[in-house]
Amino acid sequence: MEETAHPYVPRDLKLPGYVPISMSMSTILAVYLGCSLLVVSLVWLLLGRKKAKVEKLLMCWWAFTGLTHIILEGYFVFTPEFFKDNTSCYLAEVWKEYSKGDSRYAGRDSAIVSIEGITAVIVGPACLLAIYAIAKEKSYSYVLQLAISLGQLYGCLVYFITAILEGDNFATNSFYYYSYYIGANGWWILIPLLISFRCWKKICAAAANNNVQPRTKKKTR
Amino acid sequence: MEETAHPYVPRDLKLPGYVPISMSMSTILAVYLGCSLLVVSLVWLLLGRKKAKVEKLLMCWWAFTGLTHIILEGYFVFTPEFFKDNTSCYLAEVWKEYSKGDSRYAGRDSAIVSIEGITAVIVGPACLLAIYAIAKEKSYSYVLQLAISLGQLYGCLVYFITAILEGDNFATNSFYYYSYYIGANGWWILIPLLISFRCWKKICAAAANNNVQPRTKKKTR
Repeated sequence: MEETAHPYVPRDLKLPGYVPISMSMSTILAVYLGCSLLVVSLVWLLLGRKKAKVEKLLMCWWAFTGLTHIILEGYFVFTPEFFKDNTSCYLAEVWKEYSKGDSRYAGRDSAIVSIEGITAVIVGPACLLAIYAIAKEKSYSYVLQLAISLGQLYGCLVYFITAILEGDNFATNSFYYYSYYIGANGWWILIPLLISFRCWKKICAAAANNNVQPRTKKKTR
Repeated sequence: MEETAHPYVPRDLKLPGYVPISMSMSTILAVYLGCSLLVVSLVWLLLGRKKAKVEKLLMCWWAFTGLTHIILEGYFVFTPEFFKDNTSCYLAEVWKEYSKGDSRYAGRDSAIVSIEGITAVIVGPACLLAIYAIAKEKSYSYVLQLAISLGQLYGCLVYFITAILEGDNFATNSFYYYSYYIGANGWWILIPLLISFRCWKKICAAAANNNVQPRTKKKTR
């Protein structure tokens, strides 16, 4: 079988059976952003009634990121040979396109598959639970959101550190490096950081006001 | 330079300049367990006064795991060529010995270095902060302990999943596989799991009893 040249870096990456991308970048992005906007709007309008604006925004974020983890990243984890897909399946096209920003996806790097596996199987469903927790004002709402956000941050750290240790040379060119690899992932650092700070403060405030913490008077020691 | 045969698996792992282990396994273990016992005893006796037994045990755990992270794992992270050490430096001997259970340490696998880097630089110091937080009954005590434990669990997950994805063939023999790779790491799954459950419950109890959570009466919707 003759090998089709792939667009990824490093150029010597072996992808036997590679089938070129058939969708344009703008189509792939438009579908992703369109679906995301639909989900976010539905959550905002249907689940966010009677909620403060920040709670509404958080529910939208958890729906967006949860479905991204489960559907997009779940597909990647359980479809090792997506780069051979010749059916123009949208999810395969997404990963063929994203691999221009980080070819370790097409190359099936084990650190990537591990992080994505944890994200798709544990973090994703937990995000959907966070929507429920916020909607029903569960007592575990903040601690769940903190745990998910810390998981996302840990995943991002491993993601970037492994790349740096391996030479940071997995993007087709600097456009894809900055838009996909840095730009897209940057949101999953910024937003989890903000949510972590918020939840941490809320949890500490609750603990400080509460006698569950086995407190003794400050001056007794 | 002629290459010295190393004891690690896979046999074709290249370790140019490898210097064989000079300490016996029992010496290495005795020093680690002896130092750990000393630290734990000091924490128990000096910092644990007037504390409930479970708080004392937690302070001992955080001291033991924090110093392991900072000293042992910190040395590994910042000494890429420990396998060439010919000074019988104890820390190099530890990693030469541990690599019999997981040769990815000697082989400088980037996922391992990433996890160990996060553990040594972020998680380790956070463990020492947890001792202070418990001693001073800080409001962030439970959430900090939860965050650290979740970080340890995430690290262990990536550690084991990457090994499985790469064929799970990094131990010299099944003795090292079960004692070092499974046995030693098992504690860093079991104990963080127990602490996570405890802290989660404590945080939820505080949130349930507290008005920081923006609660509305259950039947108003």
